[in-house]
Parts: sequence; C-alpha cells; structure tokens
Amino acid sequence: MIEVGIVGGSGYTGGELLRLLANHPEVKVVAVTSRKLSGKPVASVHPHLKGICSLNFTAPTAKEVAEGCDFVFTAVPHGTAMDWVPELLDAGSRVIDLSSDYRLPVDVFEKTYGTKHRAPRDAVFGLTELHPEVARAKLVGNPGCYPTGATLAVAPLASAGLVQRVVYDSKSGISGAGAEPTDTSHYPNMAENVIPYKLTAHRHVPEIKQELGRLSPGIIVNFTPHVVPAIRGILTTAHVFAREDAVETIQDKAAIREIYSKFYENAHFVRMADSVPKLSSVRGSNFCDISFEPERGSDRLVVISAIDNLVKGASGQAIQNMNLMAGLDERTGLWFPGMAP
Amino acid sequence: MIEVGIVGGSGYTGGELLRLLANHPEVKVVAVTSRKLSGKPVASVHPHLKGICSLNFTAPTAKEVAEGCDFVFTAVPHGTAMDWVPELLDAGSRVIDLSSDYRLPVDVFEKTYGTKHRAPRDAVFGLTELHPEVARAKLVGNPGCYPTGATLAVAPLASAGLVQRVVYDSKSGISGAGAEPTDTSHYPNMAENVIPYKLTAHRHVPEIKQELGRLSPGIIVNFTPHVVPAIRGILTTAHVFAREDAVETIQDKAAIREIYSKFYENAHFVRMADSVPKLSSVRGSNFCDISFEPERGSDRLVVISAIDNLVKGASGQAIQNMNLMAGLDERTGLWFPGMAP
Amino acid sequence: MIEVGIVGGSGYTGGELLRLLANHPEVKVVAVTSRKLSGKPVASVHPHLKGICSLNFTAPTAKEVAEGCDFVFTAVPHGTAMDWVPELLDAGSRVIDLSSDYRLPVDVFEKTYGTKHRAPRDAVFGLTELHPEVARAKLVGNPGCYPTGATLAVAPLASAGLVQRVVYDSKSGISGAGAEPTDTSHYPNMAENVIPYKLTAHRHVPEIKQELGRLSPGIIVNFTPHVVPAIRGILTTAHVFAREDAVETIQDKAAIREIYSKFYENAHFVRMADSVPKLSSVRGSNFCDISFEPERGSDRLVVISAIDNLVKGASGQAIQNMNLMAGLDERTGLWFPGMAP
Amino acid sequence: MIEVGIVGGSGYTGGELLRLLANHPEVKVVAVTSRKLSGKPVASVHPHLKGICSLNFTAPTAKEVAEGCDFVFTAVPHGTAMDWVPELLDAGSRVIDLSSDYRLPVDVFEKTYGTKHRAPRDAVFGLTELHPEVARAKLVGNPGCYPTGATLAVAPLASAGLVQRVVYDSKSGISGAGAEPTDTSHYPNMAENVIPYKLTAHRHVPEIKQELGRLSPGIIVNFTPHVVPAIRGILTTAHVFAREDAVETIQDKAAIREIYSKFYENAHFVRMADSVPKLSSVRGSNFCDISFEPERGSDRLVVISAIDNLVKGASGQAIQNMNLMAGLDERTGLWFPGMAP
Repeated sequence: MIEVGIVGGSGYTGGELLRLLANHPEVKVVAVTSRKLSGKPVASVHPHLKGICSLNFTAPTAKEVAEGCDFVFTAVPHGTAMDWVPELLDAGSRVIDLSSDYRLPVDVFEKTYGTKHRAPRDAVFGLTELHPEVARAKLVGNPGCYPTGATLAVAPLASAGLVQRVVYDSKSGISGAGAEPTDTSHYPNMAENVIPYKLTAHRHVPEIKQELGRLSPGIIVNFTPHVVPAIRGILTTAHVFAREDAVETIQDKAAIREIYSKFYENAHFVRMADSVPKLSSVRGSNFCDISFEPERGSDRLVVISAIDNLVKGASGQAIQNMNLMAGLDERTGLWFPGMAP
Repeated sequence: MIEVGIVGGSGYTGGELLRLLANHPEVKVVAVTSRKLSGKPVASVHPHLKGICSLNFTAPTAKEVAEGCDFVFTAVPHGTAMDWVPELLDAGSRVIDLSSDYRLPVDVFEKTYGTKHRAPRDAVFGLTELHPEVARAKLVGNPGCYPTGATLAVAPLASAGLVQRVVYDSKSGISGAGAEPTDTSHYPNMAENVIPYKLTAHRHVPEIKQELGRLSPGIIVNFTPHVVPAIRGILTTAHVFAREDAVETIQDKAAIREIYSKFYENAHFVRMADSVPKLSSVRGSNFCDISFEPERGSDRLVVISAIDNLVKGASGQAIQNMNLMAGLDERTGLWFPGMAP
Repeated sequence: MIEVGIVGGSGYTGGELLRLLANHPEVKVVAVTSRKLSGKPVASVHPHLKGICSLNFTAPTAKEVAEGCDFVFTAVPHGTAMDWVPELLDAGSRVIDLSSDYRLPVDVFEKTYGTKHRAPRDAVFGLTELHPEVARAKLVGNPGCYPTGATLAVAPLASAGLVQRVVYDSKSGISGAGAEPTDTSHYPNMAENVIPYKLTAHRHVPEIKQELGRLSPGIIVNFTPHVVPAIRGILTTAHVFAREDAVETIQDKAAIREIYSKFYENAHFVRMADSVPKLSSVRGSNFCDISFEPERGSDRLVVISAIDNLVKGASGQAIQNMNLMAGLDERTGLWFPGMAP
Repeated sequence: MIEVGIVGGSGYTGGELLRLLANHPEVKVVAVTSRKLSGKPVASVHPHLKGICSLNFTAPTAKEVAEGCDFVFTAVPHGTAMDWVPELLDAGSRVIDLSSDYRLPVDVFEKTYGTKHRAPRDAVFGLTELHPEVARAKLVGNPGCYPTGATLAVAPLASAGLVQRVVYDSKSGISGAGAEPTDTSHYPNMAENVIPYKLTAHRHVPEIKQELGRLSPGIIVNFTPHVVPAIRGILTTAHVFAREDAVETIQDKAAIREIYSKFYENAHFVRMADSVPKLSSVRGSNFCDISFEPERGSDRLVVISAIDNLVKGASGQAIQNMNLMAGLDERTGLWFPGMAP
C-alpha cells in the first residue's frame, strides 16, 4: 500500500481527498494534519467520514510527515505551501501541492500573487492530459479549478492552431471559495443570484495563458469568473474566435469533433458529451465533459466544459497525478460516475 | 406626514422597514441610525434602495432621534433595545421595538434570555390580530417571527377551547438569522439541506405559550424550528391535538372553517387559503395564509401557516402596529400582494 | 382611471402585470382573459393575489375587450398575439404586446420564428430609454427579456462609436421559460446546475442587433444564454471589445462613466451601480443596474447589467410603456425598490 | 460474479442502482430494461454513466430477464411490479422490488393504494436492520423512503416500550417524486418554498405503523410529509411522546444513547451522530445518521434522522438487501462516505 499524508485536512480539498482516498485500493492515509484541530477526530470536522476515517488530526513537522509517507498532498492556503514543500521533498516524499505556489514560473507567481516566493522548486504543472511528464515528477503543482475546465475545453483547438482569441465566461459553485463563511457565501446573498467578480483580472488567468500559450503562441485570453447558486461544479463557456484562416474549419463539426477525439484519445476522464454538458453528470466525479457548437456564418465557436471543482478541479486531479507518479493507471480509485440527480 | 426614525438601519429588518416605508403614503423616514456606518449613504449597504432612499446613516442620541420623530422603530439586537427605548419614550416618541426586549414579562424575559432586564416598561404585545389595544400603546413589543406564524395558525382553535396540545414544527428561511455570515448560513452548508436547531428550547417558545395560554389556559405547546434553503418565509406545521371532548369537532371541516372566519373577520392580513399555503404567495407581503386538514379517525388536526418572516414576521407587522397607533387603517402602505413566482 | 385589460392572464407575465397594477394609482384592471380558465377566480391560479384581485377570468372577443379598455396588454404566446392585436387596435384600444410578434420587421420576424406573420402592423419597439416615441404609439412591441438587459448595458458605448464587437454571456432565472413544467425547469435538473442553451442562435439576438445596429452600424453581436438556479433575474455579462481607435478610451473609467451618465440622464430606471450589480437589488422592481470594468492593457471592457426578467424584462417595462403612452410619468406605480434580501 | 438485471432503468432509482453497482466488486449488470427506450444507450438517458456503463436498454420478457440473472431489481411504478415479480420468481431469480407492491399485507395494500393486488407473493420487508430474515428471502419488498428514515429513528425506543405516540414531520428532497416534471417540481414553485402535502394520509404511513407496531403494539403514529428545495435527502423530525411510565427515562440521555447503541450494534449503516445530522453527511451514501434531544420537563423526545432518499431510502438499501441475500457482507460496494459539501 502507498502511504499518504495530507497536510491541511480541515478544509474542502482536504476533506475531498479523504472522501476519495477512502476507496482507493492502493492507498492508505496515515496522517492528516491541522494545527488548529490537532488531537480531534477527523470526523468531528467532516461528519460524512464518521465510521469511515478513524484518524485524528495531528500537528507534525514536515520532516515527520515525510518520514511516514510515500506521497504528501499539501492542501494549505496559497503562500503557506512553500513553507512545507521543500522539507517534504528533501525528506524523500513526493508531493502534490494543491495550492498555487508551484503552478507558475517564479516571476509570474510573484507578479500575480504580489508576494515573494520563498522556496522555488522544479515542479510539473499537473494537468495530466497535457503533461504526461508528471509520471516522473517529484513535485506537481496541481492546477487551479478554473484553469482545469478552461484549458481542457480549448486545448485541442489551440493545439490545432485554429484560435485567435478565447473569451472565457466561467460559472463556479461557491465551494471553490472555501469552507469559511463570507459575505458572498452567505445564503441570502448567494441564493437566487449570480455574482461576477474579479471581472478582468482573476489570479487563475496566468495558468490558462501559460497552458494555451504553450500550444499556440500569441493566443489571446480573456476571462471573467462568476459564482452561481451551486455547491459544486464549474461550467465554462468558452467563446472561441477563429484565426482568419480557420473560420471555415470551425464550421465543420465533424472536423472539430475529430480534433477533440484525437487529442483526448488516451484521456479517460475527458468525455465528449452528446449534448450540452451538465454539472450533475460530473458531480462528485473526476470527469470533464465537453461539447461545442459553431455559430453559423460567424468566426465564433462556443465550447462548454463541465467539471466538479473539488474533484477534477482539485482533489480528484491530485489523486490522478499521484496515480501516474506511482505508476498506477490514472483511473485507480477514481473510476466512478458523477452523482445525478 | 408622520415622521419616523429607525434605530439600527443596517440589518435585514432595518432594510425591510425602509423598503416598505418607501411607499407608505403617510410616512416620511427622517433618520436611520447606525453607529458603525454613520455618514455613509443608506444605499451603500442597501443597494436596492439606491435612487429611492437618499438618507445617510447617522449616530444621534436617543433624545435627538425622539425629538425629530413621531414614531421610532428600534431594530437593534436583543438586549440593546432596552438602552434606547426608555429615553425615546421619555422624549415623547412612540416606539415599536422589533427586538425581544419588550415582548415578555420581565421574569420570563430574564429566564429566557439569561440576562437582567435593565429598563422594564409597559408594553403591548404587537400581534394586532389578538391585541387591538396596540392602538393606544406608547410602546409595542413587536412579536418574534416564529410566534407570529405559530400563534395565528392556532389562536382560533385555542380560543374555541378545542386544543389540548400543539406540536409545532416550523421551517424558516435563513434571513431570520440576520445579515451576518455564519456556518449555518454558509451556502454549501445551507443549500440542499434542512437544519433543525434548538430542538426543544427555542427562545420564541414563551411568546407562543403566553399568547395561546391567554386564550386557553393549560394548553401544551411543543416547538422545534428548522432552517431550510430559502431566503424568506416561515412555513409552520402545527400538529394540533384535540381535547378529548373536541375530537369530533375537529373532524368537522365546515365548523372549523367557521371558527377561523369568525375569529379573523376583521383581520385583513389573515387569509384562509383555498389550498395548502405557499411561501411564494406571501413573499414580500404582510399576509399570513392558513389552511387546515383533520386526520380521519384521529385526534389530530394539521394546520399550516405561511408568512414572510421579514414582513409579517418583523418589519411589516411593525408598520401595521404603527398604522394602528397612528389611527390609520392597518393596511396603509402594506396592501400589496406577495411576489410570485 | 385608465381602464386596462390583460389578454392571457394565467401565465407569469399576466400574473406580474396584475401584481404590479394592483398598486398603480391611475389604473383599474377591468378584464383578465383566459380561454381555459374562463369563469374561475384569478386568485385560484395566482393565490398571491387573493384578497387583492377579485376578478374572474373571462373569454371575450378582442372587440369586447377593446370596448371596455383604454389599454390592452397582450400576454399570450408568440404567434398568438397577432390574432388579437389588429382587432384590438381597430376597436380603438392602444396595445402593449408582450409577445415577440411586433418587435421586429416582418421579414426578420418570419426568418427568426420560422412562421408567416399574418397581421403586420406599425409598432414601436418599447425600450423606452431608447425610444421616446412610444409616447405617441398605438402599438408597442415590448422587448424581450434578454434584449432589455443586453441593450441597456451597451447602448451608451455603441452610441459613442466605441464598440467593434460585443460577446454577450447572459444568465437568466428560469421563470423566463414560463409557468409550464419542463425537463429544464424540473428542480433536480435545474438546482445545482447552470444550463447553457441555444448556444449560438437564440431568437432574441435580432432584437439586440436591431437596437445596437441603429446606434452603431456594423457592430458585431454574439450571444449565448444560460439558465441558472434562480427564479427571477437576468445577469448579463457583456464582453465589449473596443474599436481599434477606442482602445485607450475604454480604459478611461471617468470618461466611460460620463458616457453612461449622459446617455441615461433622464432614464429613471437605469442606475449606475457603485459595485457589481446584484439580482437582489432589482428583484421585483423595474430597475436596471449597470457597472463596468476595463481590462488593463486590453481592448476589452466588461459591462454587467442586472434586471428582473419579469419586471423590467417584461411586465414592468410594459407598464412603463403604458405610462408614457398615457402621458404619465414613467415611474407611476413602478417607483419602488427591489426586494433584498 | 453475480449477474443482475434492472427492470425499469430509466428513472431515478434505476439510474441510482446503476451508479452504485458500477463499483460493486461482486456484481455485473447484464440487463437494463425500458420499453420506451429499448435500443438506446443507457448513457443517453443517464449521461453521468457515459464511459462507465456501455449497455443499451432492452425490452425482454420477465422470463428472459430471469434466465440471465441471479438477482433482479424491479424499479417500476407501483402497480406495475406485480406484473413482473411472479414470473421472475418462477423462472428462478431472486427479486428485490423497489415499488410498494410487496411491502404490505394484501388487504392493507389494497386499502392503501385503492387497487386490487393481482399477484400476491410471500415477501420480506427489506429494512435489513429490523429484518435479518431477508438473507433467506426469495422476494424482498424494499421499504419506502419515508418509512426507512422514520422507522430507523424510533425503532429502538419503540422496542424498549417507551413510546406512546410519534408525530413525524418529514422533509424530503424533490427527487423522491421522480424524474417526470410536475407543477411541484417546477423550479419557480419548489425553490424558496417548503411544500407540505398529503398532510394526514400519505401512503407510506401503513409501512411505518406495521414496523413500529410489531415492536410496540398500540403505538400511535401521525405523519406529515413536506418537500423542500433539495434534490436528495430526507430529514425526519420525530416528535416522540413517552408513555406515562417512561417520562423520566426519556430525560436520561445516557440511557437513551445506550438503547440506540445496543439496538444498532451490528447495523453498519446506522450512525449515532455527534451533533444534529446533516443531509450532506449522508448525501449519495447508504448511511442513516441519527441524533436525539429530550425536552426538559416534558414528555417529548425529539429524534432526528437523515438519509439519502435515493440510496438508503431506495437503491442503496436494495443493494444492501441483495448483499445479504447473496451471503455477502452488507457493506459490499456500499462502504463509502457521503458527499460533503
């Protein structure tokens, strides 16, 4: 069995790792840390795990965690992961970091987050569908939730050189904002509402630009996120505008479908949907469902993707990364359907 | 025009008073207080009032408020109202207090809220349908939201001496818990959930016992509240158990309907619904809709009532009280339908 | 008093006309028609109107309606209004049609709706902020809900010649789809979901193109609608792309704000919001709240508008049209705030 | 591998069986029937199963189904199951019927459902926690969703002879009403609402009376169901009234806790919760979480139970029954936590 530790187990991504790993046939979770809750049963914070997870939270040093674990998931806030990761690596663990600390080049990170990076390390961007090299990584920077849905939606088209610009309009469930109550997550504010925020400058944009830019240098990316009255899920509407020489191509549905099929030939978790993707089809699962429709007589192709922000957008993808790093089939422990209705 | 002040205008009941009074033909709001927000536009906290209410929050003394106002609504937390009300009264204002400070006899208040009452005054319990004497009151204790829906549902039956026991199972929208975010109001906790709380000892129970007990000494009251995924509204399910000698009577639908009709003959805001009441029928309005159904071959009669907790359960009822105190028709400024859908 | 009839009173827009007109000081509703429900009380279908509206549904001819009414609102399905409107006009009524039958030139209508227009008449497009000539109209085609929010968001920029292209991504409450249950409106499908539909070819697009095209010939419009888990409201995200020569201008917030202020100087129901507009600020009201934010270093300006689809997007706007046609202040009976929370 | 068939696979309970069985290590689903959808891929109706379930719907006879299957789940409407079950049994399958056709004695069934029973057979009531004899059954009548949560909440107290009367007030997610859109499930009606229905005479009451009556003859049961704005889950509030000689006992929390612990000693899926149960703790899982609180100085004990209506209240419980019938651990394929948040 692979022995696994979770640093920062009290939040949503920590809880989700525990939920998913509970049925992973090759993994045993041996440590779940939380400074604040040390000594308390994990199930006291995550009552859905009662009877399933009998661990208590602990508050060990990075070295202590690393000594007992083959893999460590760091599920701590941005800017905190960098205080754990180097020691974990140095003590011999392989690490999947769910924060943003190891997703971007240092200069881009520092500009985006307005903070100095205290401990840069080599890391692979853990979008496995685009980065098979995660299999050999010591450290994986697990992608942000928006970039996962956004990049998967458009990567095949970008890779085919068809895209001039993408205007992303993303709609996220509010769990993406974490377990702490805020004005935005206050039910009377969130219910019966749609809340656009960071209209032009969300911190996830550089990840999308990095990934699409690798595939198609010069591609223009615009992005506006919204939260909607849903607990889980990100529905991304990608308004894709074709390069001048690709306007005809994007009208050819069969050709576009072929491009997606080829690109995702070996990607088990990407499904081309037969109709517009639903959040309920991916809810609780690691799937990313995608569909598209060209606008007749126009240079626009609309692509829709649906993921569960806590699974494919966070903890599920982290486990998918771990599977590959451990030489397992990427589906191990993750091959179950979404929960509909 | 009646000049009115609102002490504590930043919360939900303060905002609702402003929303409702904006179209009251006989009222002019002249002061809205908030220590924290003094100097800021009311519309900065209540953006729905932009263009409608041009006042700024102020932070005057009670005396200063009273000097400019015929009526003052105190919409401050429990335990704080008693610091305002005596001075307001002494300076000549008539007061409708939306807190719990003036709803109960001092001994019951102190036992229920676990705090000493620093400033008792004579007050009328402002459930106008049962207390026409509010018309002559200087100080009205505006009823709690649960007691309003619960008492109106059963008062006619209690008054007719038919009831041995009532088991109330109430379901409230989360706005009843206020504008401050909490774990309970956190969207991922509240959505797709039903949350029972204070299962056997909610602070509103003494108000219900007081009102029904006046009508039917010895009546037994049990009460369990829940919050449901709704912003507004209280749906009260009253499981009414008949006295031994009334078991037959409660099976007689026509007789029961007659009892309600008589009792609420002059109560404009109580409507006997033709089918089970809907929160959407009363949403945003001052109505209380009621229906009932006896269980065949049993001693149980189920009564359902629906109110908007922020209107008939708080600010609307407060204005209804003010109307009567001012010698106006109780409907003035309140005679509009609920917002459905 | 102005005597008013509503043809087709059983649906959401009919119910909303009744809710709003209940407090209109200059209007008396004298007829509410429904073939299916003729003879039944209006309140049996609209229980929120019980005690407020005592009319029964009737099933008169167009001529009979017109004879008793100064103004008639036709709130019947697309393709049905054209069977009523000519007779109503000929019998002397002035008509506000809430269907799509009189919003577009006949050729555009026929192409868009795939049906022959059986009874074309001259009509004014009832977006009063852009069409003061409604005051003199006999027949007004009340705009669609999406075009209302979309056009108001961008009209000032288009009028100023700044816009090359707008990519609209709209999010609507499900009441826009009507009172009849469908797969999409089925709670288990709609809750916790976001449903894009008619991704590239919604029937409302020609209205938007018509209105913006009048202000700025050649402007390119793309539009994708979604339904979100909300009863009421449309939140429109307009991704506005500047003309080459306007890229600098759209970065100048003060200049843009000035353009909006001037354009909407006399438009009482358009409010420039101090922060991102909320559906709760306009819920149940006739307001359209707007804000904007330029993307630094880009040609993109994001504009957000919020309306209540059943009020400013339908019945409220219809009454606003009637007010102007009747020589009243446009605010008459409509000057109240949104219902927040 | 156990070969399994699902008769009636297009609805919610059929879909849920497929979702859950997809990861059952001992089961292979070999047939999913639907007359209407015969020939179509299962994933066309259940898009969440795409890539997971590659079966097509078929329309075989009962005999054909039975010949290929060790176990058959009948997930068809009430009154239809009786047309399948006898033939399935006669052809050698063991059957778990998710309809109401085999839960009650014939006379009670006929009175409750107002229809003649055309094919009575011996069956065991499949609430495994109370009926270990399901292990030997040929035919199991899988309990209704309400009776599952209601009975489990009170059975230990009834069995201990403490209960005079239970007043059940249940709150269900709307998926319990099925996949077909109705007025009640219409989002604008269901959202922001709580809808009581069949206030005094729901068809599930006889199941509860049967089960509690077995444990405690003469116990009085009252029941009122509500639907709430949630997709999944049933939260049952059981207002338990003690027998005269048990009023003191129910005040003794330790004693009551002991009664529950003993009663559910071997029941893996019943968890005594440390605080009030949440629907999110059981969402998607087969758990039933329970807590209780006595009312001080009263004869009332409030018990709360939470289940997922589609899992423990239907398809999960059906699989739990199958596990026992097949000699497997009841947890096989079902031992995973709820999905929170």
